[in-house]
Amino acid sequence: MTEHSLWRFSRALHHAINDRQFEDIESLIDEDVDWALYGPIDMFPFLGARAGKSAVLEVIRQIADNFQVRRFDRESIMLGVDSAASMLRYSLTALDSDKPISLRVAQFAQFRAGRLTNMRVLIDTFDLVEQALGRSIHLPKMTAAG
Amino acid sequence: MTEHSLWRFSRALHHAINDRQFEDIESLIDEDVDWALYGPIDMFPFLGARAGKSAVLEVIRQIADNFQVRRFDRESIMLGVDSAASMLRYSLTALDSDKPISLRVAQFAQFRAGRLTNMRVLIDTFDLVEQALGRSIHLPKMTAAG
Repeated sequence: MTEHSLWRFSRALHHAINDRQFEDIESLIDEDVDWALYGPIDMFPFLGARAGKSAVLEVIRQIADNFQVRRFDRESIMLGVDSAASMLRYSLTALDSDKPISLRVAQFAQFRAGRLTNMRVLIDTFDLVEQALGRSIHLPKMTAAG
Repeated sequence: MTEHSLWRFSRALHHAINDRQFEDIESLIDEDVDWALYGPIDMFPFLGARAGKSAVLEVIRQIADNFQVRRFDRESIMLGVDSAASMLRYSLTALDSDKPISLRVAQFAQFRAGRLTNMRVLIDTFDLVEQALGRSIHLPKMTAAG
């Protein structure tokens, strides 16, 4: 059995972010990739939707400019032949402030011939925003239930 | 082929939330279910971790007290024998204010003998908080990248 595309992609992604080595990840992204990291793009301009390999590589470079991956744990994982879904917990360092940031992420990926064709990432964004601000945002209790 | 547990669970969950009919969902939750909806529990007390069927049923009742599901679209889905991962876009109505709320959710579920044993849900929480507040939260631009 060959290795699942997810593992190769994941290794290359972390190598790109932490070591600014973009060759491996470049070879694993389809020219016509469809990509979305859902979240507040005003605060984090590298979030949002992108189409095509060069736009996605630029996002990965921006993430590498801003964060270091200290560790990650895959809490849930499902693998299909050419697809993968996982929930991960990341421990990052924000490079400008040297602050630790810990966040949970859900990732749905599709591959074709070993290359990423579709990526959808959901982030626990409120938690992320509070950590990036370095303070909690006051929230009223919204529920009507007891 | 029998129907995947996810479809039965999903139907029963929406029936519970929209029609306050809890019998179906009750029969589809394992006594020892392990459950977590990640998000700001100060604002939404029904978020957070729960252990056991009765605690989870109470959460579902609280969601039913607060929201109506107007529609949902499954944007990504992976099915295993006893597991499922999906990314969904929900259109809800907040019952107290009659306000529409639209949110994206990633859900990882495990079943045993047709009953839910594990559920992990990640929500685009910043988007949810802004909609529930009815205003945007000002965010500084955090990135160092150009």
